[in-house]
Amino acid sequence: MLSGVSQSTVSRVFREGAPVSKTTRKKVEAAAAALNYSPNQIARSLITQRTGLIGVVITDPSNRAYPDVLFYLGQEIQESGGRMLVVALPRDGETAGATREILAYHVDGIISSAILDDASIEMCVPAHVPVVLFNRSTSNANTSTVGCDQHAGMELLVQHMAAAPTGRVSLLAGPEWAPVSKDRMQGAVYALTRCGIEFAPVMHSDYTFEGGRQSTRALLSGADGPQTVICANDAMALGVMDACRFELGLRVPEDVAVTGFDDIPQADWPSYRLTTIRQPVRRMAKATVRMLMELIEGTASSGERRLLMPELRVRASSREGPAG
Amino acid sequence: MLSGVSQSTVSRVFREGAPVSKTTRKKVEAAAAALNYSPNQIARSLITQRTGLIGVVITDPSNRAYPDVLFYLGQEIQESGGRMLVVALPRDGETAGATREILAYHVDGIISSAILDDASIEMCVPAHVPVVLFNRSTSNANTSTVGCDQHAGMELLVQHMAAAPTGRVSLLAGPEWAPVSKDRMQGAVYALTRCGIEFAPVMHSDYTFEGGRQSTRALLSGADGPQTVICANDAMALGVMDACRFELGLRVPEDVAVTGFDDIPQADWPSYRLTTIRQPVRRMAKATVRMLMELIEGTASSGERRLLMPELRVRASSREGPAG
Repeated sequence: MLSGVSQSTVSRVFREGAPVSKTTRKKVEAAAAALNYSPNQIARSLITQRTGLIGVVITDPSNRAYPDVLFYLGQEIQESGGRMLVVALPRDGETAGATREILAYHVDGIISSAILDDASIEMCVPAHVPVVLFNRSTSNANTSTVGCDQHAGMELLVQHMAAAPTGRVSLLAGPEWAPVSKDRMQGAVYALTRCGIEFAPVMHSDYTFEGGRQSTRALLSGADGPQTVICANDAMALGVMDACRFELGLRVPEDVAVTGFDDIPQADWPSYRLTTIRQPVRRMAKATVRMLMELIEGTASSGERRLLMPELRVRASSREGPAG
Repeated sequence: MLSGVSQSTVSRVFREGAPVSKTTRKKVEAAAAALNYSPNQIARSLITQRTGLIGVVITDPSNRAYPDVLFYLGQEIQESGGRMLVVALPRDGETAGATREILAYHVDGIISSAILDDASIEMCVPAHVPVVLFNRSTSNANTSTVGCDQHAGMELLVQHMAAAPTGRVSLLAGPEWAPVSKDRMQGAVYALTRCGIEFAPVMHSDYTFEGGRQSTRALLSGADGPQTVICANDAMALGVMDACRFELGLRVPEDVAVTGFDDIPQADWPSYRLTTIRQPVRRMAKATVRMLMELIEGTASSGERRLLMPELRVRASSREGPAG
């Protein structure tokens, strides 16, 4: 060793209050100075092997759907003594490059609200950097996920709907590549089938208000009488409501009942009063950070899925059952 | 020197392709290994004095108002070769502690959408870490700001309003502590005065939809006939519109004309069609990162304010003038 002392002694020198002789301290400090090595957060990380940095991967669409998530994740990470290193990916961004760059900063762990490809995840394994996906399902055993139980949410919604006449039922999904949309639609299809309610083939849109608005005419065509539209998220549902009222002259819920998923703030505005499913976003953020910290500390193993229960919010956009 | 070579030689060893003899490389690598020093992003930063990390301070309210800002800032920072280290502050968070922690990570610069107190800013000066505030005005010469010209925006809005009868004009400001709200209200008051339009005393709310909704009755009381409400942001304006229509049975814009500021996506929804001022958020994010990079490279000096011009968006919530 250059400073003539062991690694653990070097470590003690940079830890406040740790026992170390004056001579040893001087030796180590001289060695450190030679490499511009000061006891700051980054330099200290070379000894403790922890930087306190948590890489958080976000995408444009995920940020739009849950604007508060990043804030909640940040608060939880800070309460655990860490800091967020954020990487913003374009929707179709190549994730391996971003992962390589995050790893170069020696993060302690990664949280991603984007879908990481297998190559990205496999890169994290030898680096001993655990990965937790936020509300994204995966079949890769080297990642863990925390999410909302999408199937259970749709089950609650369909049970509520089935208590009143539904008319023709149609389903408006998100983009075909979106796994959360797929989970929600699978849940809806399963619950509708169990209740013996028929439905039209699933249509896809892009998760946006504008996409919902533009899909409405096609969604409702070819049927007379009352209808019900189940949407994979709130933004599209609000677009469907506005298209019904301002473009097609239809009343909600008398002519068309509409439901969403997420419970974004606008769902509760008087103009909409959308019946929807509330994802426990704050609790999900807390559980995500807790799971990552357990993986970093080695008290949990990867490959786990934690699903939190969502809640039904019945408002004015759906029809009330005979008892209601 | 422990490795028996100079600092610049150490530097060359860790820079790919730099000329350095085999013997020297071995010496330095041995010295580096002794301190667990590997040529990764963090270790490299000890030599280049740059980490590529940009500290970004966000607050709950700023994140709500501009959910896309963080994403845009992230993209711009990444295009400049850096990464965002995000710190989420609670609204009344003490900023000095957060600043100290950011500085411990040896960031190259700081962008803040929160108001940093003077103590925080003075801490950054000896560390040679430039600070750029995003859409926050300051009188501290050690910070620079990029923002939207709030006064000019209100000027455009009042000119548009003045072309049609306004009735009684009232002003709904954001929280008293919010400098952007103050800038906007000052702009409105100045423009109204110049146009010779009288207005009721300014009322304050909390920048939220719910706050706008709850302020509406008080805002409109004590006057008969048509009225106009100028709001300091869109969220409150949308709340005022819904309160008028769903609680007070008033028509927008016939009975009450309503205007906002920001041009959030909901402002353009068919249920609202809010007349508002569009902040050029994406261009503001680009200008903020560019300014910070110039400060880091030493090609700009601090204390500069760059204000970008907003645009008027006339929609259905305001009255049309005789020519319109």
